[in-house]
Amino acid sequence: MATIDDKARNFLEQPFVGTVTTLRQDGSPHSTIVWVDSNGDLSFNTAVGRAKERHLRQDPWFSLLAVAPENTYKWVAVSGTAELTTEGADAQIDKLAKKYLGQDEYPWRNPEEQRITVRIRPEHIDAAGLDD
Amino acid sequence: MATIDDKARNFLEQPFVGTVTTLRQDGSPHSTIVWVDSNGDLSFNTAVGRAKERHLRQDPWFSLLAVAPENTYKWVAVSGTAELTTEGADAQIDKLAKKYLGQDEYPWRNPEEQRITVRIRPEHIDAAGLDD
Repeated sequence: MATIDDKARNFLEQPFVGTVTTLRQDGSPHSTIVWVDSNGDLSFNTAVGRAKERHLRQDPWFSLLAVAPENTYKWVAVSGTAELTTEGADAQIDKLAKKYLGQDEYPWRNPEEQRITVRIRPEHIDAAGLDD
Repeated sequence: MATIDDKARNFLEQPFVGTVTTLRQDGSPHSTIVWVDSNGDLSFNTAVGRAKERHLRQDPWFSLLAVAPENTYKWVAVSGTAELTTEGADAQIDKLAKKYLGQDEYPWRNPEEQRITVRIRPEHIDAAGLDD
């Protein structure tokens, strides 16, 4: 397992969205946008039944890349395997709404939707521009 | 094969970087940042010997996602298989330098490096926010 260093973690503390890639059953990579939780284990939040969650139950490999929107030479990419948990996932989406929207509560909550946290066990970490 | 519609193509004509994901030999997705060429077949440019090129020779599946930096609810993601060609790749990197840097020539040309174009044969296309 690789370790996310302080530079990468500080970078990910900023409200930059991440591109998450999971793998479809046909082997093709599927990429979408997520909010990144940089506290403790790196993680993101999705809902049960979405493509990302379904893919990760079949194949736990995924990658996450976040790039600074004002300087695209600065980015961090982490790939590894996913651990999924619904524990704390509702509180996490509110915390991420604070980070990304400045709001205390996630404004698009759907009572029929179960939130889930995807924690990364990092295997490969790449970064660029963090020393500039 | 899926077809990229005009809305997605217009979006990709803007100088938004793309996150490209290829697959390592261990099956893990590897994500990096590229400049996107939206003319004709969707494509990007890399150099022979880089991870992306090596991965695509082993497994042609990849995905490319571009997000609007000022509105992260607008994005286009395409996944499909890659066709690699060195033909026109030197001219293409200059064209992309114009699109992304406003410069007539790619400023970081390395004479020891052979540029290569990666063309996408799209199989899956996802998009968000393009109608707003």
